[in-house]
Amino acid sequence: MSGTGWIWYPGDFELYHGMLQNFQREERSYGWPAYWKMDDWRKNVRLYNKYQLREKTRIRVTAAGQGYVAVNGRKFPFDRWIDCPEGACTVEIFVGNMFGLPCAYVEGDVICSDASWMADDFTECHPVGMSSLYRDKEKDPNKVYYETEELLPVSEKEVCGGVLMDFGRMINGTVRVTIAGDSEKASEQVSEAFAGEDRGQDVRRSAGEVTVAYGESAAEATDLTWCYYKSEHVVSGDVLRRRAFRYLYLPGCRVGHVSCAAEHQWVPIPVKASFWCDDEKINRIWDVAKETYRLCSGLFFIDGIKRDRWIWSGDAYQSYFVNPYLFMDEEIDKRTILALRGNQDIVQHINTIVDYSMLWLISIEKEYWITGDREFVRMIYPKMEGMMRLLESQLDEHGFIRGRERDWIFIDWSDIDKTGAVCAEQVLLLKCYDVMAFCGKLLAAEDGAEASEDGTAPGASETGAPAADYRKYEQAYERLKANLFAFFWNEEKGAFIDSYESGRNHVTRHANIFAILFDVVDEARTRSIIDHVLLNPDITRITTPYFKFFELDVWGKTGHLDQVYEAIRDYWGGMIDRGAVTFWEDYDAAQGEPEQYGMYGDPFGKSLCHAWGASPIYLLGRYFLGVRPLEPGYKAFEAKPQLSYFRKLDCVVPVKGGSVSIKYDGEHLEVASDRAGLVE
Amino acid sequence: MSGTGWIWYPGDFELYHGMLQNFQREERSYGWPAYWKMDDWRKNVRLYNKYQLREKTRIRVTAAGQGYVAVNGRKFPFDRWIDCPEGACTVEIFVGNMFGLPCAYVEGDVICSDASWMADDFTECHPVGMSSLYRDKEKDPNKVYYETEELLPVSEKEVCGGVLMDFGRMINGTVRVTIAGDSEKASEQVSEAFAGEDRGQDVRRSAGEVTVAYGESAAEATDLTWCYYKSEHVVSGDVLRRRAFRYLYLPGCRVGHVSCAAEHQWVPIPVKASFWCDDEKINRIWDVAKETYRLCSGLFFIDGIKRDRWIWSGDAYQSYFVNPYLFMDEEIDKRTILALRGNQDIVQHINTIVDYSMLWLISIEKEYWITGDREFVRMIYPKMEGMMRLLESQLDEHGFIRGRERDWIFIDWSDIDKTGAVCAEQVLLLKCYDVMAFCGKLLAAEDGAEASEDGTAPGASETGAPAADYRKYEQAYERLKANLFAFFWNEEKGAFIDSYESGRNHVTRHANIFAILFDVVDEARTRSIIDHVLLNPDITRITTPYFKFFELDVWGKTGHLDQVYEAIRDYWGGMIDRGAVTFWEDYDAAQGEPEQYGMYGDPFGKSLCHAWGASPIYLLGRYFLGVRPLEPGYKAFEAKPQLSYFRKLDCVVPVKGGSVSIKYDGEHLEVASDRAGLVE
Repeated sequence: MSGTGWIWYPGDFELYHGMLQNFQREERSYGWPAYWKMDDWRKNVRLYNKYQLREKTRIRVTAAGQGYVAVNGRKFPFDRWIDCPEGACTVEIFVGNMFGLPCAYVEGDVICSDASWMADDFTECHPVGMSSLYRDKEKDPNKVYYETEELLPVSEKEVCGGVLMDFGRMINGTVRVTIAGDSEKASEQVSEAFAGEDRGQDVRRSAGEVTVAYGESAAEATDLTWCYYKSEHVVSGDVLRRRAFRYLYLPGCRVGHVSCAAEHQWVPIPVKASFWCDDEKINRIWDVAKETYRLCSGLFFIDGIKRDRWIWSGDAYQSYFVNPYLFMDEEIDKRTILALRGNQDIVQHINTIVDYSMLWLISIEKEYWITGDREFVRMIYPKMEGMMRLLESQLDEHGFIRGRERDWIFIDWSDIDKTGAVCAEQVLLLKCYDVMAFCGKLLAAEDGAEASEDGTAPGASETGAPAADYRKYEQAYERLKANLFAFFWNEEKGAFIDSYESGRNHVTRHANIFAILFDVVDEARTRSIIDHVLLNPDITRITTPYFKFFELDVWGKTGHLDQVYEAIRDYWGGMIDRGAVTFWEDYDAAQGEPEQYGMYGDPFGKSLCHAWGASPIYLLGRYFLGVRPLEPGYKAFEAKPQLSYFRKLDCVVPVKGGSVSIKYDGEHLEVASDRAGLVE
Repeated sequence: MSGTGWIWYPGDFELYHGMLQNFQREERSYGWPAYWKMDDWRKNVRLYNKYQLREKTRIRVTAAGQGYVAVNGRKFPFDRWIDCPEGACTVEIFVGNMFGLPCAYVEGDVICSDASWMADDFTECHPVGMSSLYRDKEKDPNKVYYETEELLPVSEKEVCGGVLMDFGRMINGTVRVTIAGDSEKASEQVSEAFAGEDRGQDVRRSAGEVTVAYGESAAEATDLTWCYYKSEHVVSGDVLRRRAFRYLYLPGCRVGHVSCAAEHQWVPIPVKASFWCDDEKINRIWDVAKETYRLCSGLFFIDGIKRDRWIWSGDAYQSYFVNPYLFMDEEIDKRTILALRGNQDIVQHINTIVDYSMLWLISIEKEYWITGDREFVRMIYPKMEGMMRLLESQLDEHGFIRGRERDWIFIDWSDIDKTGAVCAEQVLLLKCYDVMAFCGKLLAAEDGAEASEDGTAPGASETGAPAADYRKYEQAYERLKANLFAFFWNEEKGAFIDSYESGRNHVTRHANIFAILFDVVDEARTRSIIDHVLLNPDITRITTPYFKFFELDVWGKTGHLDQVYEAIRDYWGGMIDRGAVTFWEDYDAAQGEPEQYGMYGDPFGKSLCHAWGASPIYLLGRYFLGVRPLEPGYKAFEAKPQLSYFRKLDCVVPVKGGSVSIKYDGEHLEVASDRAGLVE
């Protein structure tokens, strides 16, 4: 990142805000901090730079925290203009902040805080972290600065002795409540006027107070017992905390006597894509997917805006796929990757889930493929190595990864045989070796470092220097691949089995899907898996939208676009038919009101605005508009629309540093880009 | 600790408050956070307990942070009475707190938060941490609750156009400023009345504002440029932040127009000792030492109340010696030990100083010897092992420890030859092996675990289980001892040399003092060191009070009490003669006003209330009153007053769980204890 801005120890912004995010879950009057170990940001850092000044110059340092500025060793307070002498000049900012992110902003004609600064936590020094969201001196990186929009209900009606307000769209924000008359006296009268109208609902309310119940659905808002969020004892003028909802319900109130104005809040990330085709349902799906995705993309990719509001690695992994087809925003990917991983030392799997740790690692290659940003790979590589050390500490004699106590071998909610070493985990591990080799090679090549004969450069990687020891990962890849086939491939079934230890030879789709996605199987075995597993109705169907994404990606990757198109129209179209304004965590056409809102044994446990619901943006962009990078960072890219699915198209798909527009009128196809991109 | 109180993840209270303490340094209008890596307390924990209830009971949980209570898996908010059913009942408290210490207090007839609870950080579970200072529900462990006393100046006089207020004693607290008339209007008039009286001092002041300058000495307070603390633009009613001072100076003010009231603040730790003898100077020394020590003992032992206000391991090490002769407070020792050490993983030496890391480890044996608390040894032992791993990662082929980049090999400010491996560091390392063997053996013995043949119990120690692998430390001890003598003992000089690599055969007192204190040398070599080093005027004298403590301890240990007595009368008596109300960081009889206040090149850089100045309490109690434990925890103890130094005595010295009174009228000696203690 070029230019002046706030600076901090790299990764700490993400740890600080990541924890803040993971502490945002709220459920029926209690907070629910995520149940895993969250690494801390540093509280005490030194930010420094060295200059050779032609003439004396002035600087002023603003900092979040306490400390001082040292100019050539002489100490000064923050917030004052300081003279820096001609010649060699070292500027050091010591800043401690127990209750927030220690960071600084330096202004001056010559010296300012930019990416050339270094950060020191008194044990290691690295280039500072920055964010394009925090370029202004006035924007403290400890706070989130939302764009806001005031929204009023589009309809209000009286239901069960109260008012149900429908805002017509999903909102994530605050609510200001005004009781008619807007004075304490008046609101008391209003409240008294409605006394006795509560039809048995448990609404304890003093004079002048109202209860505000929230819902993503009308059914949720009007259920005062089971709705997720509810504020009681609300008085006129109160602004209620940031929450996700479409409906508000105020029991014991009448239309016109109480008004609610929402302040919808979002982190500004520009949408760079647009989609229009001749099929209005597909257009609506794309629009609702866009709305869903924007709502679930803040500083980080979260799962859902009502629940859990946590940063889950598996959910984020799927969001990384959508991003280049909507935002092409590199920073949110990187922030999420950094927040998920934590500090160098790692003792627990991300979100406690072994497969999520591996998806995290795999996402780095994905990220590099989109951005072409080698500096990020270089910065994160030591943390990838740390992750590999954790993974490798759990290997058995065959090189298979096994869960430890307190580890969660998740894969999916399905009937996977998890006896002993689980196949899907090994396929992910195999991909991890592949990614490590790829990234290690990349860094080694970039340095022009001649890899030594055995590919090792001992110790170098610990300090963030490029690792040339990628060959060990190549070797590990080959070893594991051989054992994977030896132990898990079942020739008779023409597929991978879940477990070789149970003797059950049980086949599920999961490992087989990963094997195709991660290029573990050749063409013949891919064919075999498609025939024997994916098209085989006797193999348990994928029921979760989480894994449905991977399955659809396989269909796309293997050219079965009809399957993908059908799924988009049926699954996502089904939600549209039910009036969805955002896509749900899960959709089952067999369920109706109000069962369709339940999940995890909770009548309103389902999130109705869930990030992974946005995957049509990826599926349409990647497979139907056919846009993809052919080289990292879209140095070369491809746009190959599948015209058989459309009669008309008018779309824009971002590429790194530009976009591709695709227009089709049924006869002529026009594909244009504002950026060159050629296969070299 | 028995009884109900706040509970948290063990050690986290100390990390939180330790960082708060290390961020308290203030100097000439800027903050100065300690320049080392400080470990973070956990932000997200689960506190839990299991009960078998005979009948249903109620609990109410108060917590600092957000989260919920789960009773047999069912979730409830904090602050409400919750029913716990008869039978098996698991209570879990999930609490996250990004900006403070997550902790909880449970009240109920049957279930309450006590030492039987466990704490889980989602990777490890340990018994909870507690403090006797936080037993009340109303006392949030995130805050420090001071005892307070309002103090007014004992004298005020006009100096250089301002008022100098002398409080007659050292204060650590806030100051409330009242400008006469006590109204804004009046204070404006006062201020205007004094306009133009500032004699060239840089006092920018608006109407109604005054400047308050602080000093441990009058010279400091009246030096508006070089005083450490100064508040400008103070208006009537302002309460100024907690600072250490004896004098306040208000330039441009006249006596009677501005008044200052101090609120002296201290953490309540009862004094359990008293001292009176026929020599008033010695009595005064003991009293001033007590005052000094009490001021420097808060939640932790800090070095000084004006500067640095940091927790230094070397300084704390000496405070541990004084504690049993004044407070006999186990908790402040433990808090300090935990705060210094940080979390399990350690990458940097304590305060960046290798010798301070080793003194930390050595202090555990010292602590055990006083308290007899094996549970604390058990709790801290994994961190001792972690420390040993760090130390052992720096050994050369002879087993000698060497500094790494960014390590500070300190020992003392003296002309020590620090070429290559430094002798004093090896002596400390030797003692570390001894302490590890001692503590490991202790834990193994307590468990009744039969140590296996080779003394190893692999893996056990990582989880806090007692380590039976003490024999490896015994072996390391013997190996290092042999090399220490082979490389560093110089027969010709009859002493240890600093460095064998430089070829200079330079002898300083330091390593030789440590060798006697830590029983590395036999009687003959002890005699040799005393003759050739300690009594040798050609060997550079100890000039720092820090190391003077160790030297005096050697004199005491070897029975040279005259040397100790002389030092007390000359060095500490010298400060008394200058009117010291607390003992200074350093005292040089050759310096007068105002040079005696300077240190580190700063005219008021010297701390005039410095913890290590309090060592007469230890020296008098240990060697002259002759009280000491003969077995850990004073199970047996000795009181052996040296009557030749006194004509009369009337003293009380604490022992664990009681005290010893010593009365002597010149003829009869009466030694009585309220506690039995026998050598078994």
